[in-house]
Amino acid sequence: MTTALRSPLAVSLGDPAGIGPEVIAKCWDNRESFGLPVFVVIGDSRAVSAVWDGPIELIEDPRQADAAFDFGLPLIQINAPRSDVPGHPSVAGAHTSLDSLEIAVGLARSGSAAAVVTGPVAKEQLYSIGFQHPGQTEFVAERCGVAPENVVMMLAGPTLRTVPVTTHLPLSAVSSQLSSALIESRGRATLRGLQRSFGIAEPRLAVSGLNPHSGEGGQLGREEIEMIEPAIAALAAEGWRVTGPHPADTMFHASVRAHYDAALCMYHDQALIPIKALHFDEAVNVTLGLPIVRTAPDHGTAFDIAGQDRADPRPMAAAIRMAAENAALRAETA
Amino acid sequence: MTTALRSPLAVSLGDPAGIGPEVIAKCWDNRESFGLPVFVVIGDSRAVSAVWDGPIELIEDPRQADAAFDFGLPLIQINAPRSDVPGHPSVAGAHTSLDSLEIAVGLARSGSAAAVVTGPVAKEQLYSIGFQHPGQTEFVAERCGVAPENVVMMLAGPTLRTVPVTTHLPLSAVSSQLSSALIESRGRATLRGLQRSFGIAEPRLAVSGLNPHSGEGGQLGREEIEMIEPAIAALAAEGWRVTGPHPADTMFHASVRAHYDAALCMYHDQALIPIKALHFDEAVNVTLGLPIVRTAPDHGTAFDIAGQDRADPRPMAAAIRMAAENAALRAETA
Repeated sequence: MTTALRSPLAVSLGDPAGIGPEVIAKCWDNRESFGLPVFVVIGDSRAVSAVWDGPIELIEDPRQADAAFDFGLPLIQINAPRSDVPGHPSVAGAHTSLDSLEIAVGLARSGSAAAVVTGPVAKEQLYSIGFQHPGQTEFVAERCGVAPENVVMMLAGPTLRTVPVTTHLPLSAVSSQLSSALIESRGRATLRGLQRSFGIAEPRLAVSGLNPHSGEGGQLGREEIEMIEPAIAALAAEGWRVTGPHPADTMFHASVRAHYDAALCMYHDQALIPIKALHFDEAVNVTLGLPIVRTAPDHGTAFDIAGQDRADPRPMAAAIRMAAENAALRAETA
Repeated sequence: MTTALRSPLAVSLGDPAGIGPEVIAKCWDNRESFGLPVFVVIGDSRAVSAVWDGPIELIEDPRQADAAFDFGLPLIQINAPRSDVPGHPSVAGAHTSLDSLEIAVGLARSGSAAAVVTGPVAKEQLYSIGFQHPGQTEFVAERCGVAPENVVMMLAGPTLRTVPVTTHLPLSAVSSQLSSALIESRGRATLRGLQRSFGIAEPRLAVSGLNPHSGEGGQLGREEIEMIEPAIAALAAEGWRVTGPHPADTMFHASVRAHYDAALCMYHDQALIPIKALHFDEAVNVTLGLPIVRTAPDHGTAFDIAGQDRADPRPMAAAIRMAAENAALRAETA
């Protein structure tokens, strides 16, 4: 960390029966070797105690986190029904995870927290209590007053950042859901995010093709000609440094990655295959386009291994580190 | 090399105006550091001389290659019109590359060569002289009397092997071209190839899903349920070790790759993104299902850099090495 943050990061615990409590506690255990800044957990302390023997410092205000951090894991307890059986998600746990998320976002919006890092939640459980959003990202966007189409999900690792233009769609629906306007708006949000959260003054965006070999001049599909090239031209006309469409199979090698700051990909697996092949343990999910900094580890609740001391804390540590870095860069440029 | 081959490898020069001549000559230059066995080039010596100052040993029979290899690049000259201007493909060059390929395959079929390694050709030029196949792979299959649907293209690197079920199709056409029968036959050919060419007695095949998160139980597409799972069940019923469908984004990390010998992927970029992200300079294109061993470097003619001494010979070296290894394993198990 080059810049000290004036307030701690707020980490929402995620589903209390998932691996969130374990990986967050392990981050505190390894706070020095992982190079982590002060953070405060928002959630139910019983979920942490169920999987971890370390000290918890119950606090009521994020301003107390700094002093508490050396002595234990700072935690703001939320009013929650018991739901702490690892590996057994419940409706009560869904309420707890949603409350935890909402409070963490509120702290960041008010400036009491420098950024939000979100633990993994179980969407099925959330849907059962009336949650209407596709995921936490859209919920956070709504709470920040930003339309969901204006936020983008970036996967960021040490040597590669990717952004999918479309996300959770059947592969056969990707082409019909793509449009020049969507590619353009995702591209613009990505470029602005690279400036704002990553401190890159003149960001370079590499845009992938949709089809093999980028369609080979229309022989293997026309989306490149009809949608992707016009979007690239529109962004370039605004002065952005944008290249492509690049054949997706040849754009993720180290020697190629050196030429861009982020890759804009047309669909979920095109963006996630390379980042997870290269940076499985370090890929961070970053939401761009929000008034606050929000990151998350790129894994789920992993109920099957919860409570067994088997969960790897490195993705959560990477998410906490990146939240701090992005928040510091925003503070510098604000 | 653990097993000495009784005959040299035959390397077809590819398009004389592409980077084939340069990378093949550089392989001979670096034959010791690259660990290469004896090979003989089939092609036009003038195309090699145009881009390389080293010694060429003109021979007429592959049996002379062994003695010649220490003194120069062994080459069997084919009757060819001049077509040796680097970077400028021509119809004459297309004839030369096709003749070179045909002779190399013939040598391997007759046993005079241990395997065929093919240099890169220009498909557009080949089409202009009446070539009717989608690529060299299908041409080789036909010359070997094998139906094209029974050969598979594998991309093989040091820590990952992938096979695409479908190849050069628009992404939007992938779903409609997939079928349980096709997945099953490609899977079976891959498993047999792992036994025969890679010496793996009980190969493990990991089959990818088509959709994000493997379709999430049908929520994000039904191809997994309707096509992929039945194909996996059919292969498993034959006694093969097959797993999946695996979400494509989480199956290519090192810790996951350790659990399978090859990944069967549903479309071009799903197979090629991870192999090229991880093994750009070492990925070898291996054709399985043939009576002969055939490999190729996984790059094209690169006319834009031909004749500039800029081409990287490592992919060609990897293709030559793998051809020798596969041929030796076949000889052992024959």
